[in-house]
Amino acid sequence: MHASTLNARFQRIKSNRLFETFIIGIIVFSALIVGAKTYDVPPTAEKVVILLDWLVTLIFIVELTIRFFAEENKSRFFYSGWNIFDTIIVLVSVIPIENSDMAIIGRLIRIFRVLRMVSVVPELRMLITSLLKALPQLAYVMLLMFIIYYIYAAIGSTFFEEINSTLWGDVSISMLTLFRVMTFEDWTDVMYETMEVYSLSWIYFLSFIFFTAFAFLNMVIGIVVNVMEKEHQSIVEEGLNRDNEELISIRHELAELKVLLKEKL
Amino acid sequence: MHASTLNARFQRIKSNRLFETFIIGIIVFSALIVGAKTYDVPPTAEKVVILLDWLVTLIFIVELTIRFFAEENKSRFFYSGWNIFDTIIVLVSVIPIENSDMAIIGRLIRIFRVLRMVSVVPELRMLITSLLKALPQLAYVMLLMFIIYYIYAAIGSTFFEEINSTLWGDVSISMLTLFRVMTFEDWTDVMYETMEVYSLSWIYFLSFIFFTAFAFLNMVIGIVVNVMEKEHQSIVEEGLNRDNEELISIRHELAELKVLLKEKL
Amino acid sequence: MHASTLNARFQRIKSNRLFETFIIGIIVFSALIVGAKTYDVPPTAEKVVILLDWLVTLIFIVELTIRFFAEENKSRFFYSGWNIFDTIIVLVSVIPIENSDMAIIGRLIRIFRVLRMVSVVPELRMLITSLLKALPQLAYVMLLMFIIYYIYAAIGSTFFEEINSTLWGDVSISMLTLFRVMTFEDWTDVMYETMEVYSLSWIYFLSFIFFTAFAFLNMVIGIVVNVMEKEHQSIVEEGLNRDNEELISIRHELAELKVLLKEKL
Amino acid sequence: MHASTLNARFQRIKSNRLFETFIIGIIVFSALIVGAKTYDVPPTAEKVVILLDWLVTLIFIVELTIRFFAEENKSRFFYSGWNIFDTIIVLVSVIPIENSDMAIIGRLIRIFRVLRMVSVVPELRMLITSLLKALPQLAYVMLLMFIIYYIYAAIGSTFFEEINSTLWGDVSISMLTLFRVMTFEDWTDVMYETMEVYSLSWIYFLSFIFFTAFAFLNMVIGIVVNVMEKEHQSIVEEGLNRDNEELISIRHELAELKVLLKEKL
Repeated sequence: MHASTLNARFQRIKSNRLFETFIIGIIVFSALIVGAKTYDVPPTAEKVVILLDWLVTLIFIVELTIRFFAEENKSRFFYSGWNIFDTIIVLVSVIPIENSDMAIIGRLIRIFRVLRMVSVVPELRMLITSLLKALPQLAYVMLLMFIIYYIYAAIGSTFFEEINSTLWGDVSISMLTLFRVMTFEDWTDVMYETMEVYSLSWIYFLSFIFFTAFAFLNMVIGIVVNVMEKEHQSIVEEGLNRDNEELISIRHELAELKVLLKEKL
Repeated sequence: MHASTLNARFQRIKSNRLFETFIIGIIVFSALIVGAKTYDVPPTAEKVVILLDWLVTLIFIVELTIRFFAEENKSRFFYSGWNIFDTIIVLVSVIPIENSDMAIIGRLIRIFRVLRMVSVVPELRMLITSLLKALPQLAYVMLLMFIIYYIYAAIGSTFFEEINSTLWGDVSISMLTLFRVMTFEDWTDVMYETMEVYSLSWIYFLSFIFFTAFAFLNMVIGIVVNVMEKEHQSIVEEGLNRDNEELISIRHELAELKVLLKEKL
Repeated sequence: MHASTLNARFQRIKSNRLFETFIIGIIVFSALIVGAKTYDVPPTAEKVVILLDWLVTLIFIVELTIRFFAEENKSRFFYSGWNIFDTIIVLVSVIPIENSDMAIIGRLIRIFRVLRMVSVVPELRMLITSLLKALPQLAYVMLLMFIIYYIYAAIGSTFFEEINSTLWGDVSISMLTLFRVMTFEDWTDVMYETMEVYSLSWIYFLSFIFFTAFAFLNMVIGIVVNVMEKEHQSIVEEGLNRDNEELISIRHELAELKVLLKEKL
Repeated sequence: MHASTLNARFQRIKSNRLFETFIIGIIVFSALIVGAKTYDVPPTAEKVVILLDWLVTLIFIVELTIRFFAEENKSRFFYSGWNIFDTIIVLVSVIPIENSDMAIIGRLIRIFRVLRMVSVVPELRMLITSLLKALPQLAYVMLLMFIIYYIYAAIGSTFFEEINSTLWGDVSISMLTLFRVMTFEDWTDVMYETMEVYSLSWIYFLSFIFFTAFAFLNMVIGIVVNVMEKEHQSIVEEGLNRDNEELISIRHELAELKVLLKEKL
């Protein structure tokens, strides 16, 4: 009884609009601290920043504790990926880091605390979820694209390595170069260089651009069509179902009428 | 009575097609003056330009006065954002500016007078309104994009500041650099520079491009789907409603028939 | 009678599949000649090219004559924009041009003869027609975009002229520079240059990119939605009409039944 | 009988999930070998690579044999483009190549073996098939685009050849330069160069960008609309058919009722 009262109290705190706003404010504040650190700050300000940093960590621990105790089924708390994410971020923030190499990891973790914005604002959480849902249907197009990249990269590093080993040194460097070509970033410089040796190498670049652009376009169209079909189908279905029910009830009426007629006449 | 007659007269002027065309002509003319000023003009021509400028201001004042008196409910005039915009533009044009610093503001205001085109042509006003309506639904995707930018900028200025402080000096400069990367503008130069120190930094750039492109794509698809769903639903609804009316009348006929049969037999 | 027989004969020639293919072949051939001229050719070959050129012109004249006489109503021939286009191209080809300045126009006309491909292949003609039909609905978005360009160009040439007069000299040069910025072509070079004087000028560039990208996106979405709505409406309408007719006939049947019942009982 | 038993056994092997996974694994492995070759490898490792290469070829021969004997109708085996592709790839791999010129072809063939991934994974095969199906409807837009390119290239190499013969030397080089302009890759450099001689040449470039962008946009919209219309029509049709069946059965009921009434009364 006592536990459940506590539980309810925690839940009340958790659902409190003010509490939510306060936590979002703290996250924004921690983001600002992270940003402020990238400017040249006087040493005294730096000490204040470290202090504020610990304060933010403390508030995050308290918030996480409240959310944990607000959960009725404690073991379920870690079912949610967002809760796990929050816990890791907070835990790593607590670990004292003295070593300079580790200090960088500490700074990284403090940066990733900004991501807590996503785990706290429900609309952003939904957005991420829907983005992640769109990924699997892209899997095969991306595999196809990877195959195209790999084949072109293999060809590229076979033929063009002697021309420019910085761009075509091995298969992985070539893939990076090809990605650069796909973004049209100084791609003609890359092409003109190879055309001096192999004058027909423009075929290599143009076909690559054509294939990847075509695959990319199809991927985009695929997503658009997919998303629209789903919503679309539901609208049409709904409308037609309403009609259909109406039609079925009319048929039943008619059947009744027939029975009535057959009986009476 | 007298006031309402005046009101009606002003309204007639305001709705006059010729008057509208004349005002649009004046706006185009004022735009041409603004453009002409950017060319090297002889001093005599400059005086003519200043004179024409005052003429345009005068015509705008007269037009605004007519539109104000054409409004039946005077206090409602400033409910419309466009009217407020027009009034501000005209008022600031009138203020005499001698100081050279202020002169630039005066020139700016004269440039913004071209925007009156939007407030005068109804089709453009509608276009702007529909564009503004599309903005709120983008709010969360843009917030997400800002979070991605902020995190990458914080990471960037933490690791790459020593490599190139012009590009990665602090969080805001880094965000500008990242926007540059997103537009693919010499982004490989930025990447190759960092890869000399951190050879794996291509992961940083490619993941950033992937995330922002993916978020951007989803934003676009979101808008398309949203816009189409709305129009689409209305078409289907309309068609089905028409069907539905027919179904309802059939049902009534059937009910009547049943009553008839039950009574007579 | 004689005239109509001739007319019919010309029409038979015009509709002949072989004749069509022959003309397309001649156009392709004339395109090849145009292309061949851009290569360094020996003087003897050049004479052959000139001869072939005249041959093509001759064939085009014959073809046009046939098409003209195949038309029943001669005055209607010039109602079609394509016929006018063909006639002009052929007529200008005939004019002898000796002067070297005019020679360039002669070469241009010979290049534009390739466009006859569009006027001869019906599928291409339809494609162009449908593209042109899409233009009017873009008119207002393009006007809006022009206004955005003009205002930004006026601001740009007011503030940035002293920084780089090659890029921001006057309003028209500024518009070209802004178009360059919109295509992301070395736009950061343009921006960094102005940021050295006005450190906040990134707002100018980023807001411009945002506005034009947003307007452009809306234009694209507008076209997509527009095109789909039309085709879509027709499908739904068609289907629902079929249903509706069915429903109406059912209602009539019911009405007849009622009358029958009322009469007999 | 014996043959058909063998046939069935081969078919069982072919459809075996493990066998499929094994072949995919071998293809991935052969891709890795191809990739490994592009790195600087010690001579001993190179010998291992050659050995592994032959092993892969051997496995591919065995797999192809199994798939061939699994086919009931042997002559039908080569009806499938994928089977022909696989056979050619395997056959060319077997041909011993000593000559250094031919060695490059040998390496190319080994690279193209990665494409076998597409012929083995059914989802990828379907993807490619659907991509190829989308191509024909693009034919006319691409022809139109080619005509635009050709005309602009002919104009370009006529006027700009003296300015920069590397970019505008002849019609084919000009087309490559125009493709570069369309990808916005340092296109202003190309334009500024020509504008020094012909100050109005920006019209040439801007109109080209406008035309190709417009044609490209229409191509994309065409595909989207086409794909969606097809799926869309099927959904609506399906729903309406269901309704229609209901309507037809209602009509039958009504007809029966009428007959009943007419008979009895």
